[in-house]
Amino acid sequence: MRISDVLRRKGATVTTIRGDATVAEVVELLVVHRIGAVVVSDDGARVDGIVSERDIVTRLHGRGAAPGEVRVRDVMSTDVITCGLEDDLEALARTMTDRRVRHLPVIADGRLAGIVSIGDVVKQRLDELQDERDELFKYVQQGRPAT
Amino acid sequence: MRISDVLRRKGATVTTIRGDATVAEVVELLVVHRIGAVVVSDDGARVDGIVSERDIVTRLHGRGAAPGEVRVRDVMSTDVITCGLEDDLEALARTMTDRRVRHLPVIADGRLAGIVSIGDVVKQRLDELQDERDELFKYVQQGRPAT
Repeated sequence: MRISDVLRRKGATVTTIRGDATVAEVVELLVVHRIGAVVVSDDGARVDGIVSERDIVTRLHGRGAAPGEVRVRDVMSTDVITCGLEDDLEALARTMTDRRVRHLPVIADGRLAGIVSIGDVVKQRLDELQDERDELFKYVQQGRPAT
Repeated sequence: MRISDVLRRKGATVTTIRGDATVAEVVELLVVHRIGAVVVSDDGARVDGIVSERDIVTRLHGRGAAPGEVRVRDVMSTDVITCGLEDDLEALARTMTDRRVRHLPVIADGRLAGIVSIGDVVKQRLDELQDERDELFKYVQQGRPAT
């Protein structure tokens, strides 16, 4: 199972924000899109960083500042782990649990091409199990092929 | 695969906090324990709510208040989905992705007995795959049994 298979199912839409936006603006994006992280990119193609609920909770509150007064670039994570379309889903799931990150931006031809979350990994696996079950059910319904 | 199998691997420790603690205190717990949610419980046994990074980001910032001035009970989620030791992991993984929750407190005999995160679900699956591979490798190493 490859990252391209996940994107085929979920789509390649990625929400991005500029580094000079405020934390209040990124919170708005998280709430509206019901997502847990936003890729920080000034040109919409290069990944400058990623800002997650965790980054906001730990970095904003540590300094006791108001969300409207702090820039995204000051709370974002810059050591972003990214992945490619051909990367293996299982290996990346291991990376996510080991490194405790929930979102991996996908890069194709040097440009941001999608984002995969730990929720997507679980959903992909559940959908696979469902597909296997549907196949099996169909097989049983049709009867075994003559031998 | 049951929830009890997950707890056997990860342990039954659950971090709890009282509802009258401040958001600043819960943020401290999240950072120190490197977790994404804390069960809110005044007596350490009954689940009064759950407070996640998401709850803090969306509810605290929506009101523009400082973390030291807001009580946990005012930002926590009270419609907590819980699970039991005998519940099936796959069904709960589906619940987590459908309902977009990342943490399920585990209840046994009416008391808080653990917590399962979406990261634990992924880790459990990866560990199973690794066990299967180890078994297969051992089998190949030993040679096929004589037929």
